[in-house]
Amino acid sequence: MSGSSQPLRIVIVGGVAGGATAAARARRANAQAEIILLEKGPAVSFANCGLPYHLGGEITERKKLLVATPELFDKRFQVDVRTTSEVIAIDRAARTVTVVNLQTQATYQLHYDRLILATGSEPLRPDFWTSGVRNVFQLWNLNDLDAVLAMMRERQPQTAAVIGAGFIGLEVVEQLHRLGIDVSLIERNPHVLKPLDADMAAPIAEEIKKQGVQLYLNAGVEKMITAGDRAVALQLQDGRRVESDIVIVGIGVRPRVELAHAAGLAIGKQGGVTVNAWMQTSDPLIYAVGDMTELPHGVLESPQRIPLAGSANRGGRIAGTHAATGQAANMGVVLGTSIVRVFNLVAASTGINEQTCQSAGFDYRTAIIQAADHATYYPNAHEMILKILYAPDSGRLLGAQIVGESGVDKRIDILATTLHFRGTIHDLAQLDLAYAPPFGAAKDPVNMIAFVAQNDLAEHPTLLPAAAALAGWQVVDVRTAAETQALPLAGAKHIPIDELSLRWQELDPSQPTVVVCHSGKRAHIGACWLSGHGFAKVRNLTGGMSMRRHALSH
Amino acid sequence: MSGSSQPLRIVIVGGVAGGATAAARARRANAQAEIILLEKGPAVSFANCGLPYHLGGEITERKKLLVATPELFDKRFQVDVRTTSEVIAIDRAARTVTVVNLQTQATYQLHYDRLILATGSEPLRPDFWTSGVRNVFQLWNLNDLDAVLAMMRERQPQTAAVIGAGFIGLEVVEQLHRLGIDVSLIERNPHVLKPLDADMAAPIAEEIKKQGVQLYLNAGVEKMITAGDRAVALQLQDGRRVESDIVIVGIGVRPRVELAHAAGLAIGKQGGVTVNAWMQTSDPLIYAVGDMTELPHGVLESPQRIPLAGSANRGGRIAGTHAATGQAANMGVVLGTSIVRVFNLVAASTGINEQTCQSAGFDYRTAIIQAADHATYYPNAHEMILKILYAPDSGRLLGAQIVGESGVDKRIDILATTLHFRGTIHDLAQLDLAYAPPFGAAKDPVNMIAFVAQNDLAEHPTLLPAAAALAGWQVVDVRTAAETQALPLAGAKHIPIDELSLRWQELDPSQPTVVVCHSGKRAHIGACWLSGHGFAKVRNLTGGMSMRRHALSH
Repeated sequence: MSGSSQPLRIVIVGGVAGGATAAARARRANAQAEIILLEKGPAVSFANCGLPYHLGGEITERKKLLVATPELFDKRFQVDVRTTSEVIAIDRAARTVTVVNLQTQATYQLHYDRLILATGSEPLRPDFWTSGVRNVFQLWNLNDLDAVLAMMRERQPQTAAVIGAGFIGLEVVEQLHRLGIDVSLIERNPHVLKPLDADMAAPIAEEIKKQGVQLYLNAGVEKMITAGDRAVALQLQDGRRVESDIVIVGIGVRPRVELAHAAGLAIGKQGGVTVNAWMQTSDPLIYAVGDMTELPHGVLESPQRIPLAGSANRGGRIAGTHAATGQAANMGVVLGTSIVRVFNLVAASTGINEQTCQSAGFDYRTAIIQAADHATYYPNAHEMILKILYAPDSGRLLGAQIVGESGVDKRIDILATTLHFRGTIHDLAQLDLAYAPPFGAAKDPVNMIAFVAQNDLAEHPTLLPAAAALAGWQVVDVRTAAETQALPLAGAKHIPIDELSLRWQELDPSQPTVVVCHSGKRAHIGACWLSGHGFAKVRNLTGGMSMRRHALSH
Repeated sequence: MSGSSQPLRIVIVGGVAGGATAAARARRANAQAEIILLEKGPAVSFANCGLPYHLGGEITERKKLLVATPELFDKRFQVDVRTTSEVIAIDRAARTVTVVNLQTQATYQLHYDRLILATGSEPLRPDFWTSGVRNVFQLWNLNDLDAVLAMMRERQPQTAAVIGAGFIGLEVVEQLHRLGIDVSLIERNPHVLKPLDADMAAPIAEEIKKQGVQLYLNAGVEKMITAGDRAVALQLQDGRRVESDIVIVGIGVRPRVELAHAAGLAIGKQGGVTVNAWMQTSDPLIYAVGDMTELPHGVLESPQRIPLAGSANRGGRIAGTHAATGQAANMGVVLGTSIVRVFNLVAASTGINEQTCQSAGFDYRTAIIQAADHATYYPNAHEMILKILYAPDSGRLLGAQIVGESGVDKRIDILATTLHFRGTIHDLAQLDLAYAPPFGAAKDPVNMIAFVAQNDLAEHPTLLPAAAALAGWQVVDVRTAAETQALPLAGAKHIPIDELSLRWQELDPSQPTVVVCHSGKRAHIGACWLSGHGFAKVRNLTGGMSMRRHALSH
């Protein structure tokens, strides 16, 4: 090679959680560097987000999950990939790592000029899990997947229990159900999908139950009931018993920071490694990327540990570039944008939810709408439920959640992009989005919810949360008679919206008044009418009866 | 009603192009106002974007197009809707309009306190169109639709010619083809879909031809050949003759500003009415919305006339609010974001294209990638082609175009949102978007193209436009042998990417060198390698051979 000095040596620890990306990127940024990738597992990297889908057979071939082959890294990127190689120590003074070859158990020291840690995270293991039980699994890597598949081939399970209703849990539920297995889902929290607020999680829970899955909420597992080396059932803390031929646990992850911690690298408040905008740890020669790090949150502003693939990849790219050249683009912020398909529904969120607003002390307001994914006059339009959280003073968007059949991914990404720019509901109202009948509407759902929030902040009229107590309010139900019959609202005065201009005198303008319809749209029209006719205090129940039903369902 | 003074009277001229929205919004903003909507046509408003889809039967019921009924406006909004009522003059001093009842021909004066003009636009009529021909149509309103449908029922056309390959033209082509009609598409310009650059329009043209549609580009119509009261063929300027039982013309629109112009309202450089951020014309008591206006463009900064439904709706909302209350949110900017489905492909664009950059004197660079709509290891991933334009100094995004099978609408809206915030390619690289295998990838196509553009601006390496002349360059083709055979690149030195690290010495490092592959991805890796090994000047052909083929196809 050209140049007489030693080439820069970049050592990367871990392939899957941003490490492989870092390696490939480092090569492109520096053609001369020596790049060594040390991976504990058997594969340089694999598509961990695809594991549940191979389990259920939607991804038919296992090899599709092996997205980055050693051959590619060797021939195309000239990266020295060493699999089944575990790093057990970092000597920062000597700039070496201690590597164990897991095949031979041989140990050696490896010098580095730059070190990139991508050790990721590992699944939490619940207390009740006793060792030696053969049919209880996590689904975190290829070994786990192979073990589950082997067990399923061997025993043909008829029943399964999934513990944890997060992303992986819900994907596993869907895929096991797809195989015809009778599935129970057990969740410790009062609702599924922690990133969502309870009201937005309720339709997902309904969908899960509709598909025939047994859903246990507020349900802690007391113990496993075993027969020999197998679990046969789970006993819940409330005494109920859930039979299962196979158990899959997905109750969260913890960052793998032992190596970083032992080396004295700074660890943040949430237990992840502290990094700067170029993914450098407190030792500027050592980088960290992916699940093991804390990254600045675009709404909370503080570092947060959010284990998602997108930020791991972007971080890997930046760390690889910076390690190889000493400069790189800025990492930017994370927003926790995430999405999951749950049977016929899709749930997505970005930014922060009500619980986080409350615990972080953010003043916030909420708006909820139902809107079709495309023009309703064009076939196959599907309603989605949108919820946004925004600051009452500035109108700044704080977070968004969506549940629906289609078009959810598009809207959450528009909202995530708006969060990136620290945009407001007034920005959302102005967005010039693409419209043709198969794809959207002249007023996109994102525009629509912004209009609702603008009305709220302009007190025209102010919104009332979907779950608000209605005692002390004059409640006006402007739905049709048929709607009111199907889902009654006790104590309400019923005046259909199209009769309100003739019958509003039946109401008492001096009473605080809340107007209610199915989704909040007609109620807005009614509330405007009453406000304009001398009613002192008028509110619109956001999301209407359909959302109130969800909000009060737990 | 309460209050002793006369209520504010808001008169709205035109329903479809933002007027109906303005009326409904004005009522919600002001419960006391008197609101009169004057509409020349028979319906208060209708879904004009849906017309082609009813023609082809995708929207089965005509009544679905009647989204805003007079009953709704009467009972729910207390708007006095007067259809078949044409306004022929405005007297600004007297604050009156002259209305003709088209049923009775009676004329009357109507006082206004605030006037909202929503007269829209009308389709251009080509020179060759002689009057009295019964089977030549435009498709602009319900009367047009009914006339075309009547003709199709009566004559069962076997052949059709569509003139103009814009949005409506392409939608009509698709829908007529759906009915089994042999369709010819005639376009005066060298490529279809003017908002796209030629290279991005080429795949759409290919798709049209693949479906069996006869496509005539660079083709002006010289004259109609008639038999009695029917056109039987079109003669093109180059002498070719296109047989057709029915002709549908969609060659663009012009703003209907005669009324505004006669009243002395300011008209902009592009022929639309000048308005401020609240849609007020040069007379603050008169508002204008929709196709008839010019609105500030988010990239060009100057007022532009962009006749699209989204901005008409948003403008109607703002005009209605401001007319009713004296205050409203700001209209913001338009970006010309648009989308159209053409058989199995979708084409979309936002911001400005190369031609506009050139005519506006914007310095710009382009990047093109191919990327899958979701993780390729998950079933049914489809490649899309993305192109972005950005400023070389700041990296500011100037425009984007996408062609693909699915996921196009999502990415164009993310890019439009970025344009709204005047974002850069560095913002795009940081976007934290939603990823799960059915919906996206850990690096979304939007992130990916930003990485490519960042490399370009960092000269790592610089991109060469897809259609660049390659004479004088050392061209290195890093595709596989099979790819090179299928689509040869004359004069290139062929070294497959995975052999480049062994064979790069076969090349001359002193020569300016361009690396080429299928899409530009492997070429980037190769170009980085050569740059890092002493090659003086290295470029990557953006979009690779697949895009070069399109770029040179016309």
